[in-house]
Amino acid sequence: MPKISKKGLSMPESPIRKLVPYAENAYKQGKTVYHLNIGQPDIKTPQVALDAVRVHSLDILAYTRSEGSEGYRTKIADYYAKNDIHVKHDDIIVTTGGSEALLFAFGSVMDVGDEVIIPEPFYANYNGFSTSSGVKVVPVISKIEDNFALPPIEEFEKLITPKTKAILICNPGNPTGYLYSKEEIKKLANIVKKHDLFLIADEVYREFAYDGATHYSILQEEGLDDYAIVIDSVSKRYSMCGARIGCLVSKNKDLIKTVLKFAQARLSPPTLAQIASEAALQTPQSYFDDVIEEYVERRNVLIEELNKIDGVQVANPKGAFYCIAQLPIKNSDAFAQWLLESFDVDGETVMVAPAAGFYSTPGVGLNQIRIAYVLNTDSLKKAVNILKEALKVYKD
Amino acid sequence: MPKISKKGLSMPESPIRKLVPYAENAYKQGKTVYHLNIGQPDIKTPQVALDAVRVHSLDILAYTRSEGSEGYRTKIADYYAKNDIHVKHDDIIVTTGGSEALLFAFGSVMDVGDEVIIPEPFYANYNGFSTSSGVKVVPVISKIEDNFALPPIEEFEKLITPKTKAILICNPGNPTGYLYSKEEIKKLANIVKKHDLFLIADEVYREFAYDGATHYSILQEEGLDDYAIVIDSVSKRYSMCGARIGCLVSKNKDLIKTVLKFAQARLSPPTLAQIASEAALQTPQSYFDDVIEEYVERRNVLIEELNKIDGVQVANPKGAFYCIAQLPIKNSDAFAQWLLESFDVDGETVMVAPAAGFYSTPGVGLNQIRIAYVLNTDSLKKAVNILKEALKVYKD
Repeated sequence: MPKISKKGLSMPESPIRKLVPYAENAYKQGKTVYHLNIGQPDIKTPQVALDAVRVHSLDILAYTRSEGSEGYRTKIADYYAKNDIHVKHDDIIVTTGGSEALLFAFGSVMDVGDEVIIPEPFYANYNGFSTSSGVKVVPVISKIEDNFALPPIEEFEKLITPKTKAILICNPGNPTGYLYSKEEIKKLANIVKKHDLFLIADEVYREFAYDGATHYSILQEEGLDDYAIVIDSVSKRYSMCGARIGCLVSKNKDLIKTVLKFAQARLSPPTLAQIASEAALQTPQSYFDDVIEEYVERRNVLIEELNKIDGVQVANPKGAFYCIAQLPIKNSDAFAQWLLESFDVDGETVMVAPAAGFYSTPGVGLNQIRIAYVLNTDSLKKAVNILKEALKVYKD
Repeated sequence: MPKISKKGLSMPESPIRKLVPYAENAYKQGKTVYHLNIGQPDIKTPQVALDAVRVHSLDILAYTRSEGSEGYRTKIADYYAKNDIHVKHDDIIVTTGGSEALLFAFGSVMDVGDEVIIPEPFYANYNGFSTSSGVKVVPVISKIEDNFALPPIEEFEKLITPKTKAILICNPGNPTGYLYSKEEIKKLANIVKKHDLFLIADEVYREFAYDGATHYSILQEEGLDDYAIVIDSVSKRYSMCGARIGCLVSKNKDLIKTVLKFAQARLSPPTLAQIASEAALQTPQSYFDDVIEEYVERRNVLIEELNKIDGVQVANPKGAFYCIAQLPIKNSDAFAQWLLESFDVDGETVMVAPAAGFYSTPGVGLNQIRIAYVLNTDSLKKAVNILKEALKVYKD
């Protein structure tokens, strides 16, 4: 029998995958499960995007250009201009979700055995893309006590080796909800320039900045044109996770030329989803105002309710729609499973994402969970109450 | 300035990419260009698939399961059953085109430095996926004199090393149009079993088998369950290249479990395109009968006309919609460029794909081109006439 590759064997599983059978069992038992575990928002996709697909006039569902049509990329550039980010259409390669943009970025700047420094906790799939690219993630720990702010720049410098090729941040952060300040971005800019590294910023949650804070993109930082690579996606912005449309943006011409070769090998991003995504750019500002208002309300309820629970520590998120909560338990994997298997309040329970999967350093984050506030406030209150009751009786 | 990776630098360009500016210049000069260079069929997408998207009832364009919905995969299994291929829904992972299925297969069975044996000429993007996976393509040459039949099995055995992990075939073949016989598949089955290799078959042109020949899938071969990996796609079958939906099929449970981890890392295949692709499975047989009839007619016209040209040798394709033609020239790269730049018949010229890009062995195929017969017979006749006139005057 032929053998699976070492790479395949070492591909990580999604942090919640092993919980899925327990969730399915809970349904079978008739339990209601509040899903705090996933980043699939319940917010409606803008009508203009859904309608654009309904009225499509295609006879042949053909390939588009590998880099996306010039028309669509020009409109994306206009969107960035409105966000005070000044790029041209040929600085943009349309990708199949932010996922593919990350894979293309990794492939274009790193060879097998090279290293990328990432503040942890970080989006769990960065591990998958690293494994699949043969690249080593070097984590720098950000702390819940600091609200997951950027770790001191000396901590990064300690980790830089000849194999280090890039620093990757997620801003605002999944799973932390942390929004980097302009000063923090400037610190990162200095270090990548000093050490000739790429700075890759996953900015898919750009719009989700709260409390009057403004998102500062690495593309806005002067002198960073050769270093900055932005990963973007329509998934969260327009609640279109299933479109699988994203893009990679950089003013580094050699980088874009290289990314284009990866894009050509897979021929084209999905055509129908590009129609929806191009139309989504017409979404009125009122849509975002409503969505942001909704998320702020949810966050406020969530954090307030979590803070009422004895022994729970939570970082107050300034962006995205996640938070990391530290619980008075030893092992959140076991706790998350127990919630689904053995606990309920009046037939209702919650599913959470154990946070260990968001860390690369073994043994860190074991007492933490990630909560996605993608439910309405009533459901959130009920869900947090279930957590509260659960923590009263849970023993690990 | 940070450096592009070696991998990025060595990613191959598409064989026709460097011709694109010459084609654009030809348009600017007012020339008509017949495109024999691409695999984008002019055949209409089945109405049922286009309509399914028009009437979608989604409020939220959400992720699907990473492996595709159970419903869709069950229907795919039914489609295979109709083709006398017996698999279950959980032997199938839905992918973003056949491209992603290939990447997942490569990642799951090969580590960096491992080798895959591929009969050449082969689909040029296999080079891109190999480079991006850090895998080495070991070509075994199939010959135009043999109509590109399977090379003698001894030729494969000579190339097997401890690093060899798989043999990859495309059946029917792009760019050769060759359809492997049952006997040839059995020979390959024996060799992979003897040497514990995976057999990966790109069967995206399954329906395009002509002259009463029947396609024989590696999944139909007994005793091959642990070894066989099929790459599939809706792109050509339903003329839906822009959907970007394919699948990977294998009865090897460990393999499927591994592929699923790659699929989870990128979250979900595109949702809208899955709606279209699921509906496409209802396409009536008459659609395929018409399409096959059309392609056979095109092939007959093409091959007949090519054979009339002095010094042109062409393998008669039994499947897919490509052929390789050997021309009385030295360098088809230069010839293809010259056709666009400096030649026309009454303001019309042709764009062809130089065949060298479909070979991995340097210096082979320099006098060959790939022709995709994706134009109607009238256009094909005109295009071949232009080639004929061109060859009368061309000097390299």
